[in-house]
Amino acid sequence: MDFDDFFSGQLDQLRQEGNYRVFTEVERKCGQFPQVRHFNDDGVQDVTVWCSNDYLGMGHHPDVIDSMVRTAQACGTGAGGTRNISGNNHLHRLLEQELADLHGKEQALLFTSGYVSNWAALSTLGARIPGAVILSDEMNHASMIEGIRHSRADKVLWKHNDWRDLDRKLKAVGDRPKIVAFESVYSMDGDICPMREIVEVAEAHGALTYLDEVHAVGMYGLRGGGVSEERGLADRISLIEGTLGKAYGVMGGYITGSHALCDFIRSYASGFIFTTALPPAIAASAMTSISHLKTSQSERMAQRDRVARLRARLDEAGIPHMRNDSHIIPVHIGDPVKCRMVSDILLRDWGIYVQPINYPTVPKGTERLRITPGPLHSDADIDRLVVALTSLWAQCALAKAVA
Amino acid sequence: MDFDDFFSGQLDQLRQEGNYRVFTEVERKCGQFPQVRHFNDDGVQDVTVWCSNDYLGMGHHPDVIDSMVRTAQACGTGAGGTRNISGNNHLHRLLEQELADLHGKEQALLFTSGYVSNWAALSTLGARIPGAVILSDEMNHASMIEGIRHSRADKVLWKHNDWRDLDRKLKAVGDRPKIVAFESVYSMDGDICPMREIVEVAEAHGALTYLDEVHAVGMYGLRGGGVSEERGLADRISLIEGTLGKAYGVMGGYITGSHALCDFIRSYASGFIFTTALPPAIAASAMTSISHLKTSQSERMAQRDRVARLRARLDEAGIPHMRNDSHIIPVHIGDPVKCRMVSDILLRDWGIYVQPINYPTVPKGTERLRITPGPLHSDADIDRLVVALTSLWAQCALAKAVA
Repeated sequence: MDFDDFFSGQLDQLRQEGNYRVFTEVERKCGQFPQVRHFNDDGVQDVTVWCSNDYLGMGHHPDVIDSMVRTAQACGTGAGGTRNISGNNHLHRLLEQELADLHGKEQALLFTSGYVSNWAALSTLGARIPGAVILSDEMNHASMIEGIRHSRADKVLWKHNDWRDLDRKLKAVGDRPKIVAFESVYSMDGDICPMREIVEVAEAHGALTYLDEVHAVGMYGLRGGGVSEERGLADRISLIEGTLGKAYGVMGGYITGSHALCDFIRSYASGFIFTTALPPAIAASAMTSISHLKTSQSERMAQRDRVARLRARLDEAGIPHMRNDSHIIPVHIGDPVKCRMVSDILLRDWGIYVQPINYPTVPKGTERLRITPGPLHSDADIDRLVVALTSLWAQCALAKAVA
Repeated sequence: MDFDDFFSGQLDQLRQEGNYRVFTEVERKCGQFPQVRHFNDDGVQDVTVWCSNDYLGMGHHPDVIDSMVRTAQACGTGAGGTRNISGNNHLHRLLEQELADLHGKEQALLFTSGYVSNWAALSTLGARIPGAVILSDEMNHASMIEGIRHSRADKVLWKHNDWRDLDRKLKAVGDRPKIVAFESVYSMDGDICPMREIVEVAEAHGALTYLDEVHAVGMYGLRGGGVSEERGLADRISLIEGTLGKAYGVMGGYITGSHALCDFIRSYASGFIFTTALPPAIAASAMTSISHLKTSQSERMAQRDRVARLRARLDEAGIPHMRNDSHIIPVHIGDPVKCRMVSDILLRDWGIYVQPINYPTVPKGTERLRITPGPLHSDADIDRLVVALTSLWAQCALAKAVA
């Protein structure tokens, strides 16, 4: 077999389907976010980012940066080993305490990313609890899907956010250990789950609840504990998973739960045990960010204001966007070629960066721009985005919202 | 089911088997490595680390730290998104160029860790190449095992480092796409594979070669390109995988290979696509470290000198250690309880930190201390370690080496 020929053929097929990904190369500049430098074939261009997951701009917060800088200067760059072999840093323990406190749980466990935390925790639970069945919301993130798949436990999909369907399916499973896996904020539609109903149904069936809050931590709840804090449900959820790489502006993932649960995953999860620990400087800056957002409301309030303003301006302009209760504004396009074209023109002609979201990330026919306004987007930024979209809607003959 | 009861029961069983892991909590201090602060129940103690994977002390190199500091100050703490959605930083591209150059390959692809790079690359190759068979050295690392398992491709184990066995098994597979997965330096025994023979056998059967060099990059070869550089074999290996978290002293993992191979994995690997990119400051400091070790020989030479000195001193003292051609010195103990006891006493009474390596990381009966001397260990550090081990060998009635 000529492997390179095979790889090239597969890549050509992706190109023909319009699904070949081209990465947009940027450089973030402190003090100027959401303005960044964009590197393209012609050189460098200043652009405004409208699709960052650094939702609150905390990656550029002076205290968060300072924490990384001071820790790197004091402790060096890397952890130097796995948690078990010389890499277990004092700062890891402090950060885990901060995270346990954030969600009102007994313990927390750090991973190198949110992806790894979902993959490692779900694969360990599914593989190690004899006879376990994982009931997974059909729209769960790739990291959860891969974790469940890796566990080889039986999986039952339930209809997205449909707690009645979950109830039926839990009943059908019968007397086996059950794990209900779901998210609070779903990234691509920005919808928020009916958490209370899901938790009550799960409790009625004695199921363990596994909640992914990666798009919500730092953003919802008075202390940034996510939707589970905002709705007063955190103490009824067995395991809350989150990330340090979105609203907290750094990198890494974690789970929180009971001592026994976290210790079990700590002791058995290959993706936790056999990997180099997070750098102390990463742990320190994440801790500063979490601690800041436990008391400061200004970032969350400013962001909500920006989200509301952009929605109102899009409504005035007749640009169709999906309604939801979150900070994510999906602007419907419904065609992969037009979606990429709109994104390309925004970047080239307007200096506006919004990544097109096409299949397989979203279903065919629902292609979209996924816009994430942050506290640092100015009124002028918003105006400019709406003017650009209005112009493009005419230029590309895209459907307007029905008034 | 009472989940916490189940978890606690499993943890109790681990404790009874002597396999419950207790992490040693340390704080690295710049300028003082390999001395670190150790946090225990009684307070804080200064200890010397003898089991770090920051093999060359690059995590405390002033230029590497400075690079992280300056980049954090210029670009902030996090990448702010996946590589595909706003997180693709200019520094990622530069680092990938640096890595491709390191191994003389067309391209490189970054991952959040070495674990993820192995897991994601092998699972993608195994799952996406129709009919693929993965021939895996029986001692391969957990991350490779899990990647192969996740791919659900057919797997054939071959005897550790036994290229004749590999040859037989490749022949038996017949006319299917074949992937030969192996490591250069095996972490726990410190042995180095017969790379030329393996490559020749793989070539004869038209197999793709997948080489893990995580314990060798930065350490072997004139430019730190690993054992494959040292032996002039890099251009005959299809994919070289490495880490930024050991000799380079930072964090992250990567693969290098042809354009088509890297682009294929970039386009299909879930563990690459759906995860937040490495922070720019991590990428920058890794780049500084790699670039430094491409020209500087002093760290590698000093390390080899330290390794040779410690081996000689152990021989004089009759402390048994496994012979190998690498920088890893496994000191045989052969009993899990004694292994932990020796490690505990070294830490408590001597301020010497060497993690005990017990089952399941190594086979039962081969329990050991895994010692990794670095360029920053002084003659006095070495003397003190040998005196401590000699005293413990008497105290614990451990077998002496046969002269």
